[in-house]
Amino acid sequence: MARLLLNQKDSLARDYRCRFSVTAIATRSRGVLVDAAGIDLERVLENIRSRNRFPIENVALSKLTPTQMIQTVPADVVVEMTPLNISTGEPALTHIQTALSAGRHVITLNKGPIARAYRELQDLAENSGKRLLFEGTVMDGFPVFNLVRETLPGCRILGFRGVLNSTTNFILCEMEQGKSFSEALAEARRLGIAEADPDQDLDGWDAAAKTAALINVLMDGAVTPEKVEREGIRHLTSEDLEKARRQGKILKLVCEARRTDDAIFARVAPVPLPLSDPLARTEGTSSTLTLFTDLMGPVTLTEENPGVSQTAYAVLSDLLTLVRSKNPG
Amino acid sequence: MARLLLNQKDSLARDYRCRFSVTAIATRSRGVLVDAAGIDLERVLENIRSRNRFPIENVALSKLTPTQMIQTVPADVVVEMTPLNISTGEPALTHIQTALSAGRHVITLNKGPIARAYRELQDLAENSGKRLLFEGTVMDGFPVFNLVRETLPGCRILGFRGVLNSTTNFILCEMEQGKSFSEALAEARRLGIAEADPDQDLDGWDAAAKTAALINVLMDGAVTPEKVEREGIRHLTSEDLEKARRQGKILKLVCEARRTDDAIFARVAPVPLPLSDPLARTEGTSSTLTLFTDLMGPVTLTEENPGVSQTAYAVLSDLLTLVRSKNPG
Repeated sequence: MARLLLNQKDSLARDYRCRFSVTAIATRSRGVLVDAAGIDLERVLENIRSRNRFPIENVALSKLTPTQMIQTVPADVVVEMTPLNISTGEPALTHIQTALSAGRHVITLNKGPIARAYRELQDLAENSGKRLLFEGTVMDGFPVFNLVRETLPGCRILGFRGVLNSTTNFILCEMEQGKSFSEALAEARRLGIAEADPDQDLDGWDAAAKTAALINVLMDGAVTPEKVEREGIRHLTSEDLEKARRQGKILKLVCEARRTDDAIFARVAPVPLPLSDPLARTEGTSSTLTLFTDLMGPVTLTEENPGVSQTAYAVLSDLLTLVRSKNPG
Repeated sequence: MARLLLNQKDSLARDYRCRFSVTAIATRSRGVLVDAAGIDLERVLENIRSRNRFPIENVALSKLTPTQMIQTVPADVVVEMTPLNISTGEPALTHIQTALSAGRHVITLNKGPIARAYRELQDLAENSGKRLLFEGTVMDGFPVFNLVRETLPGCRILGFRGVLNSTTNFILCEMEQGKSFSEALAEARRLGIAEADPDQDLDGWDAAAKTAALINVLMDGAVTPEKVEREGIRHLTSEDLEKARRQGKILKLVCEARRTDDAIFARVAPVPLPLSDPLARTEGTSSTLTLFTDLMGPVTLTEENPGVSQTAYAVLSDLLTLVRSKNPG
């Protein structure tokens, strides 16, 4: 993110008349850095690269907690990037509430708060006259939420189907190639695709959180990840994949939702898909999402093998949404 | 389009505070209908359905030419939907120039003017303080242009690859199933997919016009369809498809463009694609477009088997873009 901001500095000034400074950075492992005059990001990156340490010359680490930092350090925007805790949404939820209450816009990459408390947070943002943006919570920087809000005016989202969790999709693709579940998981860990604790991915919680976030935002729902029917991939064997293959199908962990007469049906589960299904062709860490709309029919979006730079772009995209809106301050 | 406008009337009033009336309709086969007080669309549709005639009770056909109509009849927006004439862009080009000069916003479904004279038309629109919108010219109502403009801020489009002509893709899919070229063409005609004169599609002109339009708008180029390297599908035989199949590939008519050191390379041609290529899976009349971006990597969009309602939605989408902009009048 810091690297992208530095790289884009000149074009942001030229194309958007946007000048920025970073006044504070809070981390779990390196402490909290505050400099209201503006932190030298180039030097921070250099210090981490060469000496793996955070404070930079003449700027000491702050004693502030992240929450105190959000409340007291001058800033227009708080970017929230803590890891997902699916059962509570914390600490992201508190960070976002604190920031909005303190009159900051918020950009978050954390799907927990959107999956758990979207409506409350939107109300808080509206009452504070600030915006909560979260494009990076599903499909990284692929503009899923902006696509619907900005470019499908008048369309109602009737439902969706997606392959949205990269760890499980990578594992299923490796198993397709003949690996066992544990071999495929080991490979995902080796490549840094699976986290040290991959339970949230393997048990479908990450996918359920994305499903809930999409429902809450795009379908005006009010569900939590627990309300999503959920089955992970941990129990799948090579025989299950082979059985699907004999039927000309391929197993994918599918997120889906659709409006029923008086509610919204939501499910995450491994589903055997015919090869003609757009979702069937999602390879490796790619993601595919089909939105079913009333006026435009099905609309399918594919993000191919994203990396950390696509996640950083999600934040930049939200920053530029703020810059382009009427009242960015 | 008329049906969609009528169906959406209440929700447009509710969600966008938008009330509209249609003051004139010009057609090639049924003449020109003008009623500054507002044409009763419901009755027009009913008259066409039951008696296949255009004028409605108490409203005579006008003697105005379409160009005179555009100049004199009161209207905020002119919707231009004439068929494509690839070699001149007419009569759409004259209609659009006339409308912008007369102080109307313009929405067009005709790719000819965007492929031939995008920059001049944009200059004219800017000088007139009006907008030229054309979402329906590529991939019907799928928001290709809006996606880039509204939801990929800061991203540069480095190039694209797409399967964008439905007639040729339908024919190639039928040939995959064993039909000869002429059998497949006959089937496309029977289903109303191929036009009476399918030359523009078969020789790649429609695809070249879409390629030029995408280059002009998304890559700030200034090309015409003639500048696009172009090879159609007319010469392809079952043997060509069989040869590709033996290599594990499938033939598709691919539109592509990419920036080179000092220019933009642009081509339309049948290309054998590996089955893992997102474009390879474009079936029937569907379209697929991959945009290569600097910050977000490749972004792939798929529109599945669109019909006339997706084309009508393109116009509605552009109308709502005008309604939502600051100065819609």
